[in-house]
Amino acid sequence: MSIQTPYLLFLGDAPDPLAAKVAQGIRDWRPDFALGQLRLEGCRADLGLADMTLAEARAAGARTLVIGVANRGGVIGQSWKKVLVAALEEGFDLASGLHNLLRDEEDLAAVARATGRALHDVRVPSVKYPIANGVRRRGKRMLAVGTDCSVGKMYTALAMEKEMRARGMKASFRATGQTGILITGDGVPLDAVIADFMAGAIEWLTPDNDPDHWDLIEGQGSLFHLSYSGVTMALIHGGQPDALILSHEPTRRHLRGLPDHPVPSLEALRDLALPVARLANPACRVVGVAVNTHAMNAAAAEIYCAEVEAETGLPTVDPMRHGAGRLVDALAAV
Amino acid sequence: MSIQTPYLLFLGDAPDPLAAKVAQGIRDWRPDFALGQLRLEGCRADLGLADMTLAEARAAGARTLVIGVANRGGVIGQSWKKVLVAALEEGFDLASGLHNLLRDEEDLAAVARATGRALHDVRVPSVKYPIANGVRRRGKRMLAVGTDCSVGKMYTALAMEKEMRARGMKASFRATGQTGILITGDGVPLDAVIADFMAGAIEWLTPDNDPDHWDLIEGQGSLFHLSYSGVTMALIHGGQPDALILSHEPTRRHLRGLPDHPVPSLEALRDLALPVARLANPACRVVGVAVNTHAMNAAAAEIYCAEVEAETGLPTVDPMRHGAGRLVDALAAV
Repeated sequence: MSIQTPYLLFLGDAPDPLAAKVAQGIRDWRPDFALGQLRLEGCRADLGLADMTLAEARAAGARTLVIGVANRGGVIGQSWKKVLVAALEEGFDLASGLHNLLRDEEDLAAVARATGRALHDVRVPSVKYPIANGVRRRGKRMLAVGTDCSVGKMYTALAMEKEMRARGMKASFRATGQTGILITGDGVPLDAVIADFMAGAIEWLTPDNDPDHWDLIEGQGSLFHLSYSGVTMALIHGGQPDALILSHEPTRRHLRGLPDHPVPSLEALRDLALPVARLANPACRVVGVAVNTHAMNAAAAEIYCAEVEAETGLPTVDPMRHGAGRLVDALAAV
Repeated sequence: MSIQTPYLLFLGDAPDPLAAKVAQGIRDWRPDFALGQLRLEGCRADLGLADMTLAEARAAGARTLVIGVANRGGVIGQSWKKVLVAALEEGFDLASGLHNLLRDEEDLAAVARATGRALHDVRVPSVKYPIANGVRRRGKRMLAVGTDCSVGKMYTALAMEKEMRARGMKASFRATGQTGILITGDGVPLDAVIADFMAGAIEWLTPDNDPDHWDLIEGQGSLFHLSYSGVTMALIHGGQPDALILSHEPTRRHLRGLPDHPVPSLEALRDLALPVARLANPACRVVGVAVNTHAMNAAAAEIYCAEVEAETGLPTVDPMRHGAGRLVDALAAV
């Protein structure tokens, strides 16, 4: 089921570095998986990895060509197709988080069948998940919950995993979205799961483990975001976290895509998320705050984090700016 | 998209009346749709409707043969198949809420194609729902939320619709589950919708309407039920109800299927559901309590409802035992 590693990262004809952010995420968080990059003419992204041909990457041990770039217009163009077909013929699997699925491209599907290679469309579940049973599992689990969507929950969990592994702690990032799945090679594309099986998919993703092992579950959506709150609810109840981290982006003026709905306060988030989480795990605690200060300057970021820390009494950091050390300290104290 | 009415109700070889409860629901709540019944040898259910052959029912105007019985073992047996094929050939559409889909039976699918008839598998969405946008809609909406699954939320909404129509009020039951969809001929099978589109499906189901029109939305699951809470959350946020009714079954010892999880109190339900609902509709109020006293005798039921009414200050009835009049009074006062 998992995507075979290491990867050759396909950047295609990315018009700018942002278009290659999936590839950048893999390079940042799983550098061991990022063997090299393959760029087409006109590509304006560069991960600083060795440029490799398909043959060079295979010789170096690459197993999967990952489409690490968002394409324009939602179609897989002919310039990509030639590379993708050649990759299958060279022995690569393909992995993609694009809306249009690899498996729906008849030529790719035919070559994959003929060569016995796998096409991983990570937007689509590949597992028949169970209905959640609510039974407590061994091991510990952390979940970042946000005042809104897209406030840095995934990066917080990845930064904590990196710090915990550096300290010799047992920790596993558990991906629940397409980018996270491509980064780690495995996970649950929760927003594409059938309603009845959402919580069960998260139980499946975070099974019994060592008592001192932490699953760092990738958050999704927000309990306050009317479009996706059900997904977040299922994530909390399926994940039965021992620790919550509150995630926030202070410059956001309204909930993403909902101009009439203000972003709630961190206190409001805590007061809704914690009782909900305690239905699944009465011992759950809020242990810290992760602020995405990307849109602030350094001085403003320091002042804001200090204010939140004083108000909430919780360690408050921007994991990208300050590292995740204090959040990990808080987890270690649970 | 809707199922054509009226119906001929297929009871098959139902081993007891309970096995025909879908047909019973149609007969109880949409008597105009229930033109007649078709029973096979050995059937032990009887709705008190005229027994009709396919030809008699067609002559009387029936448009759809509804499978109103739960089959044993999840397979559509040969004794059913003959009737279903003959029905298609006679000009009936077929409608079913069975787990095994009509469309997956090759012989039925072939006859349906050849005759141009529709196969309605109401467990499966037939619409590409939008992502919820959270925009307020005209008209009013009521949702019953439960301390647990299967506590009578659908029957409460149907009983209220019947009472409201009798009073000349504008009211529409909005089905969100397979039985409700078969009863009314339309709706959203919410538990089978893809996660990202749950709330949007409910917005689609309850669109702009007259200012004095009430959608009576069929509840699903419970915010407290770890397996299905995400579905309930999406229902609340997509439905943006003006009025909540709390539904409860007092003899339940634990949440359905979760032996380690006690049923919450009505107060706990109110204190979680109301703030969540107000995120979508700040004017939302809890207007009443619907108790399922099926497992209690009349005296115990009266005492229990009176106690709850004194504690909560809300009109408290068993709609099956006392009628839904007081709940409708409370809605009319909103």
